[in-house]
Amino acid sequence: MTVASIDDMSTVAGAQRATASFGDRLAELVAARESQLVLGLDPDPERLWPEALDAEDPGEPAESWAGGEALPAMRAARAVAAHCALVIEAVAEHCVAVKPQVACFERLGAPGWAALTETVAVARERGLLVIADAKRGDVEVTATAYAQGFLGETPTPYGPVPGLGADAMTVNPLLGSDSLAPFVKAARASGRGLFVLVRTSNPGAADVQERELVDGHSVSHRLADLVHELGAGGIGRHRLSDIGAVVGATAPDRLEALRERMPHAVFLLPGIGAQGGRVEDLAPAFAAGPASGLISASRSIVTAHERDRGDPASAAAAEAARLRGLGWRLAA
Amino acid sequence: MTVASIDDMSTVAGAQRATASFGDRLAELVAARESQLVLGLDPDPERLWPEALDAEDPGEPAESWAGGEALPAMRAARAVAAHCALVIEAVAEHCVAVKPQVACFERLGAPGWAALTETVAVARERGLLVIADAKRGDVEVTATAYAQGFLGETPTPYGPVPGLGADAMTVNPLLGSDSLAPFVKAARASGRGLFVLVRTSNPGAADVQERELVDGHSVSHRLADLVHELGAGGIGRHRLSDIGAVVGATAPDRLEALRERMPHAVFLLPGIGAQGGRVEDLAPAFAAGPASGLISASRSIVTAHERDRGDPASAAAAEAARLRGLGWRLAA
Repeated sequence: MTVASIDDMSTVAGAQRATASFGDRLAELVAARESQLVLGLDPDPERLWPEALDAEDPGEPAESWAGGEALPAMRAARAVAAHCALVIEAVAEHCVAVKPQVACFERLGAPGWAALTETVAVARERGLLVIADAKRGDVEVTATAYAQGFLGETPTPYGPVPGLGADAMTVNPLLGSDSLAPFVKAARASGRGLFVLVRTSNPGAADVQERELVDGHSVSHRLADLVHELGAGGIGRHRLSDIGAVVGATAPDRLEALRERMPHAVFLLPGIGAQGGRVEDLAPAFAAGPASGLISASRSIVTAHERDRGDPASAAAAEAARLRGLGWRLAA
Repeated sequence: MTVASIDDMSTVAGAQRATASFGDRLAELVAARESQLVLGLDPDPERLWPEALDAEDPGEPAESWAGGEALPAMRAARAVAAHCALVIEAVAEHCVAVKPQVACFERLGAPGWAALTETVAVARERGLLVIADAKRGDVEVTATAYAQGFLGETPTPYGPVPGLGADAMTVNPLLGSDSLAPFVKAARASGRGLFVLVRTSNPGAADVQERELVDGHSVSHRLADLVHELGAGGIGRHRLSDIGAVVGATAPDRLEALRERMPHAVFLLPGIGAQGGRVEDLAPAFAAGPASGLISASRSIVTAHERDRGDPASAAAAEAARLRGLGWRLAA
């Protein structure tokens, strides 16, 4: 397994990074591919496509700095990487981006991180943007380290260490604007983007995000205002900002008010399918243009064959084509 | 480099995990070591102790699944691991735990994760608890994956893949109680603990955490209530819960009200030294016993030689001894 250069200039995504803002890169890619569909990659080693398990080959016993005990981790990580490559191959033509869930790779330790790096490279080769679903958030010095790890590079005495090279990542705003500043700086400097958690797709979102503040607004609304402020300096020709928002597709009644508060933000909309969200309900998200909403689906695509029969790749492609069509018509 | 067994039963920490709650394990270790000091490990590859750079040896060119391009990452990760081992060696006798900042390892990719694993093993060998400073938080299925990665293990067709094996980790509560449930479950099942962000040490904490809710309380107070509720099922003989709170040492005026809302929570108190917090101001945190407050310091210990002269190890040990003494007298 080899890792392709993260700055491969042969892809649309790579070629435009240096010159265009994230919003413009995204808008042009959405138009070119006629898709707002984001393939979520949440690989569970116990639910991989059978072909991925076949492809996994332990090879020679690992003589690595991760230690011999890590053999199950290495085998599982290789199977996960093979699975992600197969899924990407099956549905790439219907998507504009992939959204790897970092947790699902990280739980396999160092080999899992290598599988994540490889998955990013495979997605790039297919011309897809990469949105690292990391939900990081920390004090400034630590946020800088995370930004290096996902969007930039880390200076070391041995030369710079490239990060994951994601085009965008999700971040958690609980620590406030100074904790987001290093992410904004790193993203904007290289035509990358952020998606800030504003209203998540889970039932527990109500516990904190929906609390009413003394000024009559919810915490979620205040987070939206923060996104709008942070994004002001990164609005491109297509009037989309480089600072987007994660807004769960499971609470479509919140979309209109949030769109009003964030007129230039791209909404990343998880929760389609398995979590109960419906593409048909997402129209208000697209009020700022065809690229102003990204429809994220993972389990409903990857496990489509369990519901619809057929081989995993064909079932996934059919479901991706269906979701893409729904989104594209909605935004037209 | 080899990785010691994460469940090494030869250490106090390991031997007690199976039978005791996190609060009891912590209380007994604090009493035995007469210390509430937590060594923060935030390694910056450009500011490592000189001896760590000397120790780094590139060895043979890496023939690994991470690819040949990863050589700077591997060299930097080895130097980081050597640095952390040296720092732990220098100050272990004065501490009760280490708190590795995951971002600082993760930015070096797969080799960085291996360095983190190794650092955890070194800390355990010295009888220290490990608090992974990860600040993770996500929807339930993803939170389960993170809990597997830090506190548990991941089932795979190739056998279970052990996680990092931390004794505790920091988590972000913005997504609400259902997002924390998998962490609580994983922690409680194995005598481990959590530290939930309640009031962080950075200036931006005011942006969201200090917002006033319509009921007159701050967001931070509501997070404290959540911690208290989640911890109710995990209170040990020492009356400490397994669900603690991150409360910045930079806002000591908040401590009393937060202690009142969380009578059984262990407070993890970052922000001493470089961020401006003073141990002397933390008395209210210790109202629930000597182990109810953990004083976390990193830069002030690791870079003590830059301020106080002398060799890094001696300067770090002296600063750690000083902080330990201040904390111990305060709680007595």
